Amino acid sequence: MGASDAAETAEKLFSAGRVVIFTHERPDGDAVGSAFGLRALLRGNGVEADLVFPEPPPVRYREFTGEPDTPTGHYDAAVVLDCATEIRIGKGIYEPRQLADTLFNLDHHGANSIAGDVELIDVKAAATSLLVWEVAAAAGANIPVAAATLLMLGLMTDTGSFRFSNTDARALRAAAGLLDCGAELDRIVNAVYFSKPRNQQLFEAEVVTGCTRLLCGGRLALAGLDESIFKKYGFSMADGEGVIDLLREIDGAVIALLYYRKGEHWKCSLRSKDAAFPVGPLARSLGGGGHEMAAGITLDAPSAAALEAMLVDRIGSMLDSAKKE
Amino acid sequence: MGASDAAETAEKLFSAGRVVIFTHERPDGDAVGSAFGLRALLRGNGVEADLVFPEPPPVRYREFTGEPDTPTGHYDAAVVLDCATEIRIGKGIYEPRQLADTLFNLDHHGANSIAGDVELIDVKAAATSLLVWEVAAAAGANIPVAAATLLMLGLMTDTGSFRFSNTDARALRAAAGLLDCGAELDRIVNAVYFSKPRNQQLFEAEVVTGCTRLLCGGRLALAGLDESIFKKYGFSMADGEGVIDLLREIDGAVIALLYYRKGEHWKCSLRSKDAAFPVGPLARSLGGGGHEMAAGITLDAPSAAALEAMLVDRIGSMLDSAKKE
Repeated sequence: MGASDAAETAEKLFSAGRVVIFTHERPDGDAVGSAFGLRALLRGNGVEADLVFPEPPPVRYREFTGEPDTPTGHYDAAVVLDCATEIRIGKGIYEPRQLADTLFNLDHHGANSIAGDVELIDVKAAATSLLVWEVAAAAGANIPVAAATLLMLGLMTDTGSFRFSNTDARALRAAAGLLDCGAELDRIVNAVYFSKPRNQQLFEAEVVTGCTRLLCGGRLALAGLDESIFKKYGFSMADGEGVIDLLREIDGAVIALLYYRKGEHWKCSLRSKDAAFPVGPLARSLGGGGHEMAAGITLDAPSAAALEAMLVDRIGSMLDSAKKE
Repeated sequence: MGASDAAETAEKLFSAGRVVIFTHERPDGDAVGSAFGLRALLRGNGVEADLVFPEPPPVRYREFTGEPDTPTGHYDAAVVLDCATEIRIGKGIYEPRQLADTLFNLDHHGANSIAGDVELIDVKAAATSLLVWEVAAAAGANIPVAAATLLMLGLMTDTGSFRFSNTDARALRAAAGLLDCGAELDRIVNAVYFSKPRNQQLFEAEVVTGCTRLLCGGRLALAGLDESIFKKYGFSMADGEGVIDLLREIDGAVIALLYYRKGEHWKCSLRSKDAAFPVGPLARSLGGGGHEMAAGITLDAPSAAALEAMLVDRIGSMLDSAKKE
């Protein structure tokens, strides 16, 4: 196991004959973009590459991805992308370590606990797709348009189209490089930002008017969604990557909290707009994960009221204690 | 009068002793960013610079701008930024030609009809703020943080945070350069995207649920806003730069049309999501202007119904005729 830079990673990865690629469950744009982007990249450079995907890619990204693969035989390398923990890799059907000799671990999450043989972990990278781009650039690889488009998709979605605090000059220059390689920005933008189904738009309007509350003197924007609203609009949080931004966008809100029931558990998403009040530590203290400014937790609680009381208490304390310092 | 490139423009502009800056009425982010950004830039490089602004800067940009100036005496140069026509420069109180010897005309609109002595007109530039950045870079100028932030503000707002079709590698590299100069991205993003007053959010939800209709088989998304909705939410279109995106974002919509009453006239905004159906020609045929994919018109009509019938007829014909070709 050893830390690596983009050039070393590139040298080891592009010399593999057969590669199998993994990413995390409930894949977001960066998981989709980095995983399918790496597959297109490797295939475009003479490397045999398969992609194991624990579930169907989100509908909105389907036009870019094509289908995942069923792994066959043994691989020289398994690449795990954008995964902080083993648990999130998949549903236990395929294990990277059983399929391949060498495990590559490429990620930008803090507290990555996967032990790779080749590790390219960079918490300063805006997206895992950015790391894949840098590996490709270091390899001097041929970058097919499909790969450039997928990596751009990952970079754009993980940075909120270059608005979130992880956006930096490095990410913007990578995006420029991806456009130079033919990344189809218009297609991405139309699919991600300008193809909102009307039912989703009406769902979001009701989240804003019927579910959103401002607590802690307006510094916490919160929405709890119950099953009825999903049924009413035929909408699922599998397509709800941007819903929490309806809370984040409110003037004066420092913390955004969105929660909803998922099976036996509660899924909670947290965002911060102020580096003085990171949500990462709170999420980790409750068994969750993510980044400092964008994190998530899966929790058990007897009721929405109990869940909310506990979370609001913790967030309120955080807002108060940091204020006093 | 003569066309110029960034280097020539820089040489002539930075050798002026006193400069007065103008931009267009109803200033958007790029007007604000390029005009106040140029003022900060010139002042940071020993050039005396005043800025004539035809109205108060929009509230949401106020924290970046400071106050405009009252022009005094004679200037070596007047710079007109982001203005396609003389009419839009101001309210006739100050005329650039009467205040200065030399008129600089920097713009990225097509059909720019201002006759400048030095012209830097580039319709491929994503924003006028981008042109100012390139002039500054060509001059090897000192770029104060305040100037970098204002130019980034202009570039971000005119590209819809790097999502609109004017986004290219040049714009992304300029943005990277502006971040290198210390542009405060978090401040811009919090002010522009994550400081939505709750009344605006509720206004927008009602635009979505109560005012939006899909016509032409879903290919035209349209909303007509009457005075009552503005009163109900205490919201003004002076702060409504992004409202039309509520129409544009709908899946399947190719053209977005937003119209509302302004004094004796109707203000109409048009957007296209498909280069095969540009809205620029339609706007120009009705006396409006703008870009190919984003345009506006001020019209007279006896009623909302009459206005809408005329516009829907024209847009429907455009969608049909292009379809047949």
